[in-house]
Amino acid sequence: MKGKAQEKIILVTNDDGVTAPGIRALIEAVSPLGRVVVVAPDSPQSGKGHAITIGVPLRLDQVDIFDGIEAWQCSGTPVDCVKLARDKILHRLPDICVSGINHGANHSINVIYSGTMSAAMEAAIEGVPSVGFSYLDYSFDADFSLCKEVAHSVAKQMLETELPEGTLFNVNIPVVKKEDYKGLKICRQADAKWVEAFDERRDPRGKKYYWLTGEFTNRDNGEDTDVYALANNYASLVPVQFDLTDYKMKKKLENDWKL
Amino acid sequence: MKGKAQEKIILVTNDDGVTAPGIRALIEAVSPLGRVVVVAPDSPQSGKGHAITIGVPLRLDQVDIFDGIEAWQCSGTPVDCVKLARDKILHRLPDICVSGINHGANHSINVIYSGTMSAAMEAAIEGVPSVGFSYLDYSFDADFSLCKEVAHSVAKQMLETELPEGTLFNVNIPVVKKEDYKGLKICRQADAKWVEAFDERRDPRGKKYYWLTGEFTNRDNGEDTDVYALANNYASLVPVQFDLTDYKMKKKLENDWKL
Repeated sequence: MKGKAQEKIILVTNDDGVTAPGIRALIEAVSPLGRVVVVAPDSPQSGKGHAITIGVPLRLDQVDIFDGIEAWQCSGTPVDCVKLARDKILHRLPDICVSGINHGANHSINVIYSGTMSAAMEAAIEGVPSVGFSYLDYSFDADFSLCKEVAHSVAKQMLETELPEGTLFNVNIPVVKKEDYKGLKICRQADAKWVEAFDERRDPRGKKYYWLTGEFTNRDNGEDTDVYALANNYASLVPVQFDLTDYKMKKKLENDWKL
Repeated sequence: MKGKAQEKIILVTNDDGVTAPGIRALIEAVSPLGRVVVVAPDSPQSGKGHAITIGVPLRLDQVDIFDGIEAWQCSGTPVDCVKLARDKILHRLPDICVSGINHGANHSINVIYSGTMSAAMEAAIEGVPSVGFSYLDYSFDADFSLCKEVAHSVAKQMLETELPEGTLFNVNIPVVKKEDYKGLKICRQADAKWVEAFDERRDPRGKKYYWLTGEFTNRDNGEDTDVYALANNYASLVPVQFDLTDYKMKKKLENDWKL
């Protein structure tokens, strides 16, 4: 009640769920910058992409696990969390939305599959400058100290800068000793993909089932990509758009196709 | 066994599930063009976006419901279907992938949420020219005859044209009398979004739950958008890309940001 009329509201979400160490690190990183409100899934939602829940109703419960920070868990997807946050909790748009810190990379084509990035994209579609953070260390006890510095500095700059509507950043942080870290680099999305081979097994009744496995393949030799930056001890920042129109192809079709 | 060495393989999938009328219409539309193989979800998967299944194993079962057409149902998402089709059923890439016909629009920003389009995008990422078809009529007994003509003609042109890697089209078909239909128009994705208001209710135990509802808002006055074309009795075709890098913003950040 110190008359903080100008206090910024920072919406924090993720896809690993409200109990993941990564979201705790993100809250610590951004809480000096404004009033933090957390709305995150009540269970892990990795790989959910831009899924929304339309066939079942959603639950939303307040939780007290972040030492005085207002926090809610939601039964839906990361995108549902962002939608509910605006309509039922904040009753306004937050000043920025930060998502993560994801346990695992979301560089290159992974932006398409990532619940972390979809949550941030949903907020960006609503007009909120947004960013997803992902750490290349999958382990539960990963050291998030470098991530926290990066997240703090990016979020701070976003809050202090006039950003155009639809601003959305995909930030990935390498696993690197602090003395070897080279800084944050603006990048483009590498042209890379997953080549899947499903692991085929049989259940106790003899019926087949499949586990998704896959090998990541980077076929992009550019030195301005996120994959290249991360391999060279930089954190990567890719500005992301959600107008998916392929304008070059549009022009080509207009000239070439008889319709 | 007529020595059809050149026969094209057409992968058919959708997000409404293998029993939806729309996929039957699509099979009928494209089966004169090559060998059709169907791999689709065993239950409705609308709104699943680019979700993949990583926490549970997948099931895959052959079904005989399309009069001699090879067809499989899968317990996963639309994207899982496409991945499994290549690895476990076709053992090669299909010549094209067609997804739909979706019961409901996937124009403008809906491309982000659509399982129909995500299935097609997955195939495009794998290097297969792909297209998603959506019909603006939601009803179970919708008349798909115009859709079938459009789907046949687009798929035929795709099979007969040398298309660059990554080719992906989002085709929407209006609800219109055949005599009023004006043809297929190449468009860009309209700048539109959903404004959500969750319907708040209480369960028999008095606990709150929420249903997602929303209002579609088009704030794009352009006459070259998919929304405009559909409102004017055209079918729309938007070429879609999955390099989400915002190159304009990238340049701006490189000039303006101190990192």
